[in-house]
Formats: sequence, C-alpha cells, structure tokens
Amino acid sequence: MAQKDQKGLTAQKENDFSEWYTQLIQKAELIEYSPVSGCYILRPNAYHIWEKVQSFFDALIKADGVKNCYFPLFIPESLLTKEKKHVAGFAPEVAWVDYGGDTKLGERLAVRPTSETIMYDAYAKWIRSHKDLPLRLNQWNNVVRWEFKHCTPFLRSREFLWQEGHSVFSSDSEVRDDTFKMLNFYEQTFREMYAIPTLKGKKSEGEKFAGAVYTLSVEAFLPNGKAIQGATSHHLGQNFAKAFDIQFSDDQQQKQYAWQNSWGISTRSIGMMILMHSDNKGLVLPPKVALTQVVIVPILFDNSRKAVLKEAQDVVKRLTTKNISVHLDDRDDYTPGWKFNEWEMKGIPIRVELGPKDLEKKQVLIVRRDTGEKKAVSLVKLDVEIPALLETIQQSLFDKAEKYLKRSIVTVLNFKDAEKQLKTEKLLFVPWCGKPLCEEEFKEKTGAKSLNSPFEQPALKNGQKCFACAEKATVWFYFGKSY
Amino acid sequence: MAQKDQKGLTAQKENDFSEWYTQLIQKAELIEYSPVSGCYILRPNAYHIWEKVQSFFDALIKADGVKNCYFPLFIPESLLTKEKKHVAGFAPEVAWVDYGGDTKLGERLAVRPTSETIMYDAYAKWIRSHKDLPLRLNQWNNVVRWEFKHCTPFLRSREFLWQEGHSVFSSDSEVRDDTFKMLNFYEQTFREMYAIPTLKGKKSEGEKFAGAVYTLSVEAFLPNGKAIQGATSHHLGQNFAKAFDIQFSDDQQQKQYAWQNSWGISTRSIGMMILMHSDNKGLVLPPKVALTQVVIVPILFDNSRKAVLKEAQDVVKRLTTKNISVHLDDRDDYTPGWKFNEWEMKGIPIRVELGPKDLEKKQVLIVRRDTGEKKAVSLVKLDVEIPALLETIQQSLFDKAEKYLKRSIVTVLNFKDAEKQLKTEKLLFVPWCGKPLCEEEFKEKTGAKSLNSPFEQPALKNGQKCFACAEKATVWFYFGKSY
Repeated sequence: MAQKDQKGLTAQKENDFSEWYTQLIQKAELIEYSPVSGCYILRPNAYHIWEKVQSFFDALIKADGVKNCYFPLFIPESLLTKEKKHVAGFAPEVAWVDYGGDTKLGERLAVRPTSETIMYDAYAKWIRSHKDLPLRLNQWNNVVRWEFKHCTPFLRSREFLWQEGHSVFSSDSEVRDDTFKMLNFYEQTFREMYAIPTLKGKKSEGEKFAGAVYTLSVEAFLPNGKAIQGATSHHLGQNFAKAFDIQFSDDQQQKQYAWQNSWGISTRSIGMMILMHSDNKGLVLPPKVALTQVVIVPILFDNSRKAVLKEAQDVVKRLTTKNISVHLDDRDDYTPGWKFNEWEMKGIPIRVELGPKDLEKKQVLIVRRDTGEKKAVSLVKLDVEIPALLETIQQSLFDKAEKYLKRSIVTVLNFKDAEKQLKTEKLLFVPWCGKPLCEEEFKEKTGAKSLNSPFEQPALKNGQKCFACAEKATVWFYFGKSY
Repeated sequence: MAQKDQKGLTAQKENDFSEWYTQLIQKAELIEYSPVSGCYILRPNAYHIWEKVQSFFDALIKADGVKNCYFPLFIPESLLTKEKKHVAGFAPEVAWVDYGGDTKLGERLAVRPTSETIMYDAYAKWIRSHKDLPLRLNQWNNVVRWEFKHCTPFLRSREFLWQEGHSVFSSDSEVRDDTFKMLNFYEQTFREMYAIPTLKGKKSEGEKFAGAVYTLSVEAFLPNGKAIQGATSHHLGQNFAKAFDIQFSDDQQQKQYAWQNSWGISTRSIGMMILMHSDNKGLVLPPKVALTQVVIVPILFDNSRKAVLKEAQDVVKRLTTKNISVHLDDRDDYTPGWKFNEWEMKGIPIRVELGPKDLEKKQVLIVRRDTGEKKAVSLVKLDVEIPALLETIQQSLFDKAEKYLKRSIVTVLNFKDAEKQLKTEKLLFVPWCGKPLCEEEFKEKTGAKSLNSPFEQPALKNGQKCFACAEKATVWFYFGKSY
C-alpha cells in the first residue's frame, strides 16, 4: 500500500507544551506559515471553526438589535491620533502605508489596529438627537498590530480576524448594562461553542484598553498553568465622544456627549480551544465547531467490500438527515490504522468503524476522540446514539475544563505563598491594593500579572493587606501567569 | 410634529445619472464617505445586501466541494513579482507598507490586490501527488487597489470586499469545466439575488486577467447605456504553476505542472443592483437582498390608536412566522407621509398601510415599491398574498431588466453604424477581428470597448469583415460603453 509518510506528534503536551502546539497546528492542517513573519494562513480546518463561532455570536448580537457594517481598512494618521491615550496604546505597533503604486501619499495611513477612530468620526456625523440612539454597529474584519514580541499562530499574530462592536447610548447606565451583556455573550460563546469555562471580571487599571474607563474580560486557564484573555468589553465613557465630538440633544433639547462601549473576540480564541482540549494524539474538537463531526472508516476486504460500503453509505445518509456532518473515508490506498491516526490528529469527535463482522452483527464500533472510549452500537440505534454522544462529548469537554479550572484556583494572602503556588501552575485569587506600580513590580518578580476581578466580591477582612506589597487591599483579584 | 428635515433626490436618473446615484447612496443610508479618498463606509443597509449575497454564493460553492480559508493581507514584494505578467497588471496600484511602528521593514509589503501569489506559494508546499487534487479553496476578504481614476462608491473603490476562489486540478479539461461552472454560479447569483440578467462570455486578450490564459465574465447593461463587468472566472492554465513550481506526480509517477483557475465577485455588484433597479424616489431593493422586506405604517388617530397598533403587531407576528422580515414603524413624531417617503428612499419592497377604516373593513392597503401599485388585501389573506407578492416583485424586476437588455442589443457590421448606435445607448453585437490594437483604436475613437464573446457563436459569413478595422472577422463579440 502506497501511503504517505505519517508522523504523529513527537512532543508531548505535558513536557513541551510549546513544541507540542507548534507541531499540532501544522499536522492537524490548521495553520501554514506564510512568508510574512507573524502572519499565518488559516487553513480550512481552522477557518471553519471561526465560521461556526461567527455564526453563533452573530446570531446572538443580531437578535439583540446590533447591525453589521464595514469601515475602511485605512485610517489617516491625524485621525488615529485624536484620542491621546488611545493612540499611545496603539502607535508602537501600527503598520503604515505610505505609497500607492509609485506615488507617495500626502498623509500616511494606518492599517487599522482597531476601528474606534474611523468609526467615531462617522458617528459624529450621524448622531444629532437622542432619537438616533442607541446606535449599535458591529464589523467582522481583519486588523493588524505589528507585534515585536515572539509571535505564535492564533495566540499572537500580526494580523488577526475578529469582530469589533461599537455602540453609542444616551446614558451611562445603558452603556454599562450593554457592556456587561456583551461580556455575557462572550462567556456563552466560549462555553457553548468552544467548551471553555471562563472567569468574568474587570481588568486592572494597567491592563485596561487604551482610552477606556474600564475593561471587562473573560479569562480562561490553560492546562500549562497559564491564563489567557478570551474577549473584552470596554466601557468607553464619554472619552471618545469628547475627542470626536459625538453629541446629541436630549429630550430637553440640551446637548450632551454620548456614552460608548466597544467589544471584541478574535481568532485567538481558536488557539485557546486547541490548547485547552487537545492531547498527544492531536487536535480534539468540540462537536459544535467541527467541520466533520463523524468519520466512518470502513474495514474493507475483497469479498465483503461491496456490502460494507453500501451499509456505510446508508449510515452517511441517515446521519446527514439528522444534520450531522459526516465523512466516509473510503480511500483504497490507506490502511484503517493509518486513517484512524489521521482523523485523531484532525480531532474528529466520533469515529465509526464498520467491517464485515460488524455487518453480520448489524452493529458498528464507535470511538470517542476525547476519551478513546469504544462502544458497539446497533445499526438501528445509530441516529439516536450519535447525536446524543456528540452532545455528551461537548458537555464532557466543558466539564473536564471546568474541573481543572476550579482545582487550579488557590486563595493566597502573601507574596511568598503566591510565588510558591505559581510554581505549581496555580491561578491565584488574592486581596490586592489595585495599584499599577504594585502590579508591575509583582510581574517583574514572578512573571505573573493581574487577570480580572470577579463581579461578586467576597468581603475583605478589616485591615486586610495587599498580597504583594502589603499596603491596604481594596479588591479581590485573579492573578496568574498569562499569555 | 417635530420631524427631521426630509429631502428627496434632487437629481433625476434620466437627466443626471451620476448625481442621482451619489445622492441616492447617501440618502438611502448605504454609503458614508470616509476621510480616506476612494475608501467608503458600507452602512448596515448596504452591508446586509452583501451578507445575503455571501450566504447564497457560499452555499453554492460549499455544496460543490469548495472550502473557505484565510490568507494574510500582506504579500512580500519579492513574492508579488514572481509571475511577470501578473505583477505588471497590478504593481501600478499596489498600496505598500514599509513601517511597523517606528521600525522600517526589511522588505516592503503589498496590501493584497488579489491573492494568487501568496496562495500559490502555499499550494506548492501542499501539493505532491494527484491524490492531493483537486484543491479548491475560497476566501471572503478585503483587497486594495490604489486606483488613480475617479473613484465611485461600490463601482470603483480603493478597498473593496469580495470572494476569491483558487482551485487546482490535474488536467486542463477539469479546470476548464470548473471555470465555466463558477461563471454559471455568478450568473445565477446575479439572476436570483440581484434580479439582474447578465451576458456570459469570454473577455478579449486585452481585457483578460493579468496572468490568465483566458477570462470568462458576466456583464450587465445598465439603464444609462453603460455595460459593467459583474464577476470573472479565470483559466490560469499552467502559468502560475510554472512560476510557483506547483507540481504533482500523476498516476504514472510522472511530475506535471498543475492546472489552475481563480474566480471572484465583489461589492461592486451592489452598485450594479442599485443602478439597475432604483428610481427617482430612491433605492429599489429586490426582496431577496432586503434587510426589511415589508414595512407597516399604521395610520394613527387618538381614538383608534390602540386597536390599529394591536392589529399591526399581529400582522408582524404572522409575517415573521412566514420568514418575512417585517418592520412596524410606530414612531409618533413622524407623519405617515413622511414615513412613506423614508421607506421609499430606502427601497423596502412592500409597504403595508393600516388605518381605522382599513380595520373596519378587515383589510390593509399594500403598496409595491417597484411599481407604486396599490391594492387592498383582506387581513386573513395577508400571509399568502405578501410572500407571493415578494416573489412577483423579484421576478418582475428581473423581467424588466431583461427586456431592457434584449431591447438594447443591436447587431452592427461597420464602424459608422457602431458609432451611431453607441450614441443612442445601445449594446453592440459585432463581428470582430479580435486584435488588441483594433480594440484600442476603437476605444480611443468612441469610448467603447469589448465586453465579452458569447459561448454560442452565430456562424460568420464567408469573408465577413471586422466591424471596426475591416480586416477579417474571427468572432462575434459584445462591445459597449462600459464602467
């Protein structure tokens, strides 16, 4: 049998997380490296995950009244620099266009790192009265941030895909509610699509978005003991409204600056999903984002070939009518064992094996990708058992990740314990002073930083000191090593 | 009643097509101008049309086996210049990035004008054997072509949205079939979604894609007597395979260069639709691409207000269950007349008027946007009549455009007649020599150029001369003034 070389992963998740990831994303055909350093090719196996997440999140926000639109990729330098804190946060990593063909441009153009400035310039034209509010727009697009740190596919790339929502309201309370609502949509997306539990909370002053009043985030905790920010929702207050002169006349005909938020989730989330669930055999896909949910591998011998293939095709038909995406791998020039390895590497949630002996018994063997568990299932029960098993797998991936998250959180009250727990890959829950300088010093010493502070805060004991600097603690916070 | 100023279009389609278009796209809230010349903001009313077309075309190609992916926005200069004819076609309008933050890049990067080069560089890595073929990938993305001619929203913009499909096959005949199949998908998309009839055919040598063996196109003919290219499908032969070294070993283990095509449709098509169907009251939307298909305008008086609104809400519910997108305009501070004008400007296919007298008669008045036709319809029949009328409108827009197209085509055999017919806004069908120089000279003299040549060619008479240069004619071709 002339089959291609097949190599599994040579690095293990437990021992060399980074090498394991690098091998996996290429061997599972998720990523190809491109000639531009820090920019990666999303192959169909990866892009499909994004399409699934897009359509889930898009339905959530559209049902809530948000509308999609598209703003230009290019932002003139003068516009980008209009909100001072904002530009300070982004300028170091902007990619600049200065030539069109052979002609030098009059003003250089930023490739959008995010679209606040160009959108709010238009918002100022559109908004006149409180009747024009709320204005709630979203874009699905590509953005560029020219990172100089080590780039990693999905997790840190110079170009990435995302959605950016930008809403305008006539009061602080409306924007506050909406900012929390969007965060809940992100939590739901991670939970239901990626099977990832997240911690919802508020970022520190040092870690908030450039130009925001505050930033909310969902954070996940990966099996290598590192936290990662999943998505953010920013309360912008009236900061941008003042910089861009977005004013409306209220019902008393008084002019007021508008209240705004912005919120986004990116293709980074795909990387989080890979790191969370996958194993040393390759990718493990939650069924809800899998391009192929079930692969059928027929065991073919000359004398029973026709009958087995006929039955396999029948299974395809029956599962397809149940809206399950199923692939029949009837290639002749690969052994069943080779095929098993390939589909395991690619993370297909369920494998169905069907050979002549199974046919005699009117059954198939089904194998779960996440646990390796095997089970004989009667052919007549397949269209009930497979959909149920897909749901079980989705839930069980989430449950496993949640157990790990809960097990990893430790409450720590002083620096020494913090240092010790970080070494055993824990996620710290700490009483903190909240000061940027304290965070910086802690980061320098330990490599860990603040993640977010949960909305439901336990009471702080009277005189409780900051775990890091021993000044007065003001808030409970999550800290950890982080991407 | 305190309502915003409302101004209709002050230019007429018949008298000042260009000014009429400029006013319409802004007043119908499709486009906002941006601070970057030649780049436009697609507002929700416009972006929704694109989403509808995307999902239609995406379903067609996915059902046919094409998979979506995403390649980087940036292409290194050395890669872009690898296929000589290709780069010659695009280099004059490439936007170049040369700085990341404050750091000058080692090699400047093109913002993709199209992705042949960066995709085929990866294809060369992925393709080894005939078993890796066909490889059929598509991207939905943004591209930039720094046009120096007069830019116009949708029709010619420096950044636009499109899909670009790039397939690889192991034989010329496969790629030929696929190139025609994709063209048929485009014809179908224009017909079923935009209600636009198109002429399918092959472009001239002078008008084909830079680097292609030949280019197929669909062309539409607009009410101002100008043709416009709607979408293209390029047979690339082995040109790029040779430049990028895309080789596969065939079933005899012999190395061969692969056969390729590429094909695309862009947001330009939205502009075609606007120009084709709209009128002096504003936008006319084919129901299949309308964000709102039906608007209900209740006629409210104090004493009957409650009953009328209740019935209107009931109509919304009933139509929604029929999958019709319906909006109830119950704003208090605008008169019904003001609302009629607004929804006419925005192109909503059907308006439903409902007042106390209608309620008494258990009926509504329905008004077609395309014809202005009014009709009383009994309330109980609404959920049958409205869906049927939406279909009628869709078909009737197409029929009207097709009648116009057929009426506009004239067969012309010599230069004098050609010149004369172009002045009366006709589309020429001509016997042509096919030579680039002849086309150039004709264009200089008349402003008109070749569109495409139909696949079913009438016989050429013995000794038939070229309509333009009087040399030997070799092919029947469409010529016309064109965008």
